[in-house]
Amino acid sequence: MWRLLSRLFNNNNLLLTHSGKQWKKSFSSSTERKLNVAVIGGGRIGQVHMETLSFHTPLAKPVMIVDFIEKVAKSTAEKFGVAKYSTDFKDVLKDPSIEAVWICSPSSQHSEQIKALAAAGKHIFCEKPLAITLKEAEEVTLAVEKAKVKMMLAFQRRFDPNFAKAKQCIQAGAVGDVYAVHLISRDPAPPPIEYIQNSGGIHNDMAIHDFDIARFMTGSECEEIVAYGACRVDPKIASEGNDIDTAITLLKFKNGAFCTIDNCRQSPSGYDQRVEVFGSKGLVRFGNNFPNNVFIEDGHSIRRSDLPFNFFMDRYTEAYRNETKEFVKCVLENKEPPTSGRDGTAAMAMAIAAKKSFLEKRPVKLSEINP
Amino acid sequence: MWRLLSRLFNNNNLLLTHSGKQWKKSFSSSTERKLNVAVIGGGRIGQVHMETLSFHTPLAKPVMIVDFIEKVAKSTAEKFGVAKYSTDFKDVLKDPSIEAVWICSPSSQHSEQIKALAAAGKHIFCEKPLAITLKEAEEVTLAVEKAKVKMMLAFQRRFDPNFAKAKQCIQAGAVGDVYAVHLISRDPAPPPIEYIQNSGGIHNDMAIHDFDIARFMTGSECEEIVAYGACRVDPKIASEGNDIDTAITLLKFKNGAFCTIDNCRQSPSGYDQRVEVFGSKGLVRFGNNFPNNVFIEDGHSIRRSDLPFNFFMDRYTEAYRNETKEFVKCVLENKEPPTSGRDGTAAMAMAIAAKKSFLEKRPVKLSEINP
Amino acid sequence: MWRLLSRLFNNNNLLLTHSGKQWKKSFSSSTERKLNVAVIGGGRIGQVHMETLSFHTPLAKPVMIVDFIEKVAKSTAEKFGVAKYSTDFKDVLKDPSIEAVWICSPSSQHSEQIKALAAAGKHIFCEKPLAITLKEAEEVTLAVEKAKVKMMLAFQRRFDPNFAKAKQCIQAGAVGDVYAVHLISRDPAPPPIEYIQNSGGIHNDMAIHDFDIARFMTGSECEEIVAYGACRVDPKIASEGNDIDTAITLLKFKNGAFCTIDNCRQSPSGYDQRVEVFGSKGLVRFGNNFPNNVFIEDGHSIRRSDLPFNFFMDRYTEAYRNETKEFVKCVLENKEPPTSGRDGTAAMAMAIAAKKSFLEKRPVKLSEINP
Amino acid sequence: MWRLLSRLFNNNNLLLTHSGKQWKKSFSSSTERKLNVAVIGGGRIGQVHMETLSFHTPLAKPVMIVDFIEKVAKSTAEKFGVAKYSTDFKDVLKDPSIEAVWICSPSSQHSEQIKALAAAGKHIFCEKPLAITLKEAEEVTLAVEKAKVKMMLAFQRRFDPNFAKAKQCIQAGAVGDVYAVHLISRDPAPPPIEYIQNSGGIHNDMAIHDFDIARFMTGSECEEIVAYGACRVDPKIASEGNDIDTAITLLKFKNGAFCTIDNCRQSPSGYDQRVEVFGSKGLVRFGNNFPNNVFIEDGHSIRRSDLPFNFFMDRYTEAYRNETKEFVKCVLENKEPPTSGRDGTAAMAMAIAAKKSFLEKRPVKLSEINP
Repeated sequence: MWRLLSRLFNNNNLLLTHSGKQWKKSFSSSTERKLNVAVIGGGRIGQVHMETLSFHTPLAKPVMIVDFIEKVAKSTAEKFGVAKYSTDFKDVLKDPSIEAVWICSPSSQHSEQIKALAAAGKHIFCEKPLAITLKEAEEVTLAVEKAKVKMMLAFQRRFDPNFAKAKQCIQAGAVGDVYAVHLISRDPAPPPIEYIQNSGGIHNDMAIHDFDIARFMTGSECEEIVAYGACRVDPKIASEGNDIDTAITLLKFKNGAFCTIDNCRQSPSGYDQRVEVFGSKGLVRFGNNFPNNVFIEDGHSIRRSDLPFNFFMDRYTEAYRNETKEFVKCVLENKEPPTSGRDGTAAMAMAIAAKKSFLEKRPVKLSEINP
Repeated sequence: MWRLLSRLFNNNNLLLTHSGKQWKKSFSSSTERKLNVAVIGGGRIGQVHMETLSFHTPLAKPVMIVDFIEKVAKSTAEKFGVAKYSTDFKDVLKDPSIEAVWICSPSSQHSEQIKALAAAGKHIFCEKPLAITLKEAEEVTLAVEKAKVKMMLAFQRRFDPNFAKAKQCIQAGAVGDVYAVHLISRDPAPPPIEYIQNSGGIHNDMAIHDFDIARFMTGSECEEIVAYGACRVDPKIASEGNDIDTAITLLKFKNGAFCTIDNCRQSPSGYDQRVEVFGSKGLVRFGNNFPNNVFIEDGHSIRRSDLPFNFFMDRYTEAYRNETKEFVKCVLENKEPPTSGRDGTAAMAMAIAAKKSFLEKRPVKLSEINP
Repeated sequence: MWRLLSRLFNNNNLLLTHSGKQWKKSFSSSTERKLNVAVIGGGRIGQVHMETLSFHTPLAKPVMIVDFIEKVAKSTAEKFGVAKYSTDFKDVLKDPSIEAVWICSPSSQHSEQIKALAAAGKHIFCEKPLAITLKEAEEVTLAVEKAKVKMMLAFQRRFDPNFAKAKQCIQAGAVGDVYAVHLISRDPAPPPIEYIQNSGGIHNDMAIHDFDIARFMTGSECEEIVAYGACRVDPKIASEGNDIDTAITLLKFKNGAFCTIDNCRQSPSGYDQRVEVFGSKGLVRFGNNFPNNVFIEDGHSIRRSDLPFNFFMDRYTEAYRNETKEFVKCVLENKEPPTSGRDGTAAMAMAIAAKKSFLEKRPVKLSEINP
Repeated sequence: MWRLLSRLFNNNNLLLTHSGKQWKKSFSSSTERKLNVAVIGGGRIGQVHMETLSFHTPLAKPVMIVDFIEKVAKSTAEKFGVAKYSTDFKDVLKDPSIEAVWICSPSSQHSEQIKALAAAGKHIFCEKPLAITLKEAEEVTLAVEKAKVKMMLAFQRRFDPNFAKAKQCIQAGAVGDVYAVHLISRDPAPPPIEYIQNSGGIHNDMAIHDFDIARFMTGSECEEIVAYGACRVDPKIASEGNDIDTAITLLKFKNGAFCTIDNCRQSPSGYDQRVEVFGSKGLVRFGNNFPNNVFIEDGHSIRRSDLPFNFFMDRYTEAYRNETKEFVKCVLENKEPPTSGRDGTAAMAMAIAAKKSFLEKRPVKLSEINP
């Protein structure tokens, strides 16, 4: 058994060197300094970050969990063996042992919490969005910069192995100058009307991820947007939600790259997340991820045994972990986080421009969008 | 943001029911009974199981870690927050709080440890092999059955999403009667000669996984084996290791299914693990797993951006977790484990038959193999 | 050998019935009536149609070939065993034996030839474009309709197995209501500047195929177009050719479908022709065609052994044959041809609208375009 | 339109040179010397070769067609515009204008016809098999060599784009030393029992193609074969046909390469023809060919729109054409044909060895097989 070999290797570094390519895992020393962190918000995404910080980030130590529902705060603290819990995020401000904070609270509370945390000298990992309005978003970004704390905005897709690798390939020159980016980003099924009504509209709620990815892949700032769309999936989304469910958006970037985005609230074959980046030297593309790669061939068809991962919690599991680990690393190593408040602000401005284009039926320049 | 929705859902089970397909994750209650476990062996695979038991198996609680090197035992205990550590596995026997034990010690110690643990009434998860000789393997299997403890043998591939799904498809009738199974199972690069010398030969060390998978996929017992092979990769494997590095094996099963296995100690494009099962109604097949699904297209070629996962520790990460979680579940729910000592014994007999066929240059019937 | 079987089958229709699924080819009887045809234009595409009519269309008989260069006309007639050749297309008009004519002459001659042929009662297969101006295109379409002859416009992509199958799937309901169509249509390398200068611009020359396919796939008429573009590949295309080489176009159709088209005069990995059609029930998509499906896996990468078919003459070989065969069938069976002058006119209007949108930097409605 | 360009190019060779990569097709001159050929046998495969010789091989001219049924001979001659037809192959011998002959007659007549044609100084393209017995096969091979005429045996798979490209990759070093070849070769459905009864058994009738491909891919001669098999698909194949329908064969070659072959008379998903060649530097593989590459994605599955090409007449269309063109070229250019009587003899000996192995339940060396 190779287990025998691994034992040999663990005890004999010469062998490790000899055939080292196969044996790259290493153990983290338990004596390294750990980052004390808190998580605000014990909902779904808060749980995900707690799990990552507790189990997959040896250099982080969660010391407080906050949720406005005491039962949630308490049970989460127990589940992950966290010493303190609270229903008031201000307890985080007062605790000098806490160095970095994960904001997973409702969107409406983000800007207030960021400002307070920055003022208290805490580093901040913030779930999207930064704020409800563009003005607030710019304010909190400045507040963070002034306070000289680090802030990372949770555009998790950038940390997914597919998106990250595509970007690496582009940076390594595989595409050359980027001519066109095509993004497919469709949810499996529309959310409840209540959700639509509070979402701020498809551009703000759904396309904003793609606006960020368009900036990420082109490596440039958006100059102009023309947005088309319709309510095709469910008439209630228009009549009760005052929104569209199908949005086709065309963007022009300052470096000359174009981008198309296909968003739909419904995709019969499941969560559909694909990217193509085309340029002067070639193209890079990726398709969906699947729970396995089994195929069935019979008299009916040649097919995959399964549809793609169902939705973002399954599809982006690794991305959620990677982003949190990355921010811990940035704080501990005093590096600039890969995403910032400015990224959040830029994507928000694009969503506003797209909505304006759709409503006014004309191309809208980003220079028209003011906080 | 969907985060908003997830908050809605967490607080409102009616919504969850309404659109439940998308929202299937649930939280484990922290009040369920936990299984107290120990791990013997702090090498590579012991660390993997410790991590799974500590972080990914809410219903298990590691209470002791054993390694014959004290430094390893101690640092592992610290790393995972385990209360006790020891250099002597007999301390596990004496601890009445320990209900189940993961044997990750050197192969030569397995049979002794299994017998002792069974006699002490501990449930046993055992890394391959069960024992060094077929006779011992049969003895420990009987000892476990007599002691009425549960034992699961770690054929991890069965718990990999690809292998498991393929089996499910077969069981669901996608293949019909199995006519032929084809297994490709090649390591990226040969291990050091020292490893080869202690491995018991390619059939015992490498093909044994495939013998188990052949039984798993055909759902039948092997009747006859004819084994061919050669030393092609590195002449030292023959001259110093007294072994072959390329083995092509053909098996006939009692239900009429045939199986071919292609084993090689070297695969230039990386760890190669593929399966095809063909039968009266169709076929099921799967290829390799990759770290991402990015493709590059340029003037040179259309290619994957990356080679497959490098080796078993990366390729079978999920399988290692799944098998340990499965055994915890079997013990807690008093279910028969999906693999047993009999599976280990059967695969070992096939390895002996294959070696015999190779040496005697003739088909060998399993009925010729006696402990 | 199966040859033996085929002999058995040829002589024994009972056997054929027994296992008939495998044996569907049949011989055409040599006694069926043949359609007498002429081809005008002995250039590249004229040669392709001559070959199809001579060798792959048993029910057609080429009786005259016309080219304004006598040497070309003569050698083509010899090559294909055609009785008559001429340098003047009017000789076709005078020959009462000729029933149908393939117009493969320079674009500038199309409208005159169509009108003359229609007046002479000849059925017409016409290469794109129908005419140089939209006004002429509408005139010839009316002339043909008035003369009650059949005319088919050579939008060959519709007859390619991929495009045709995708359309069949849509018609069979696989997509449901079409929400979005995405077309990638990139040439391997830009043509000479002389060609660009005479092309009428990228929308007229290159995108016109995609405009037709957008109508084909959506099954609807275009309502509005917004066209972006730039000169990215070669600055001479702008400076000397007064054209762009990269065009991203967004279309809205009357049935609510949207369409994006990515055209580029250069594709490093080769001629790139891909389609995706997405809708309420699912999606249909296809990628490129390759000369073989061999893959190489080594220490560098996992890749296709070859790039896609190089360019349209290789990529659409089957399509060119299929369209010609289809028109022969339509004439002989007195069926409506699948494409008409109206299709050519519609695509031409879309090209005009796209160019207008690009120049005026605004969405343009098709209702603005008048002959 | 590119048509315009092609016209430019046809008239202007300077342009052609400038951007020549895209424009590689050329016209054959009609003044080159043509090879006068005859075809013996007007069955299915005879028709295929007639079509190729008539329409796709400008340098060949069919001058006589022979079939023992006069009606077939006559109608085929009419269909392809061939001057002479006959029911007696001896008329070919007497016609001094005929230089090369395609033998597509029943297998039992091959050896007699080869010997007579060779004696008459005709070059010979012969459908498989060379003869009914190994002794005859060796005799006719020697007769041909003695007569110094060229003979090519119709192992068409070697001329299929997939097989040919895989071989080229191997020759270019992509695989390095060949360690293992895996062939899947399954028919869509079993032939009638009458066919089975006259087939000589699965090794002779079906696997013989794979035996040739094994030699082709390994580039070596077979040393030893062990053959397993069973009647799984239809019990009548055993009871009335005295044959098996599922054959798994393992071969050892003189250069150390191993090969496995999976033959089955039934494949639910259609004609299944796949190859993998693995070696010291990498692997080359190919899967099936499909009529298009359209995929459908919906709530049920992600699948191909179509199954693979149905059977050999559709799957190997291009191969049948290529082999005939290749032989015309070999004769006209006085080159050695790529396959010979010796190839036919070698494959036949392998079929005999495989059958012997299956019947005697032991590995059989090729050295045991004597004519």
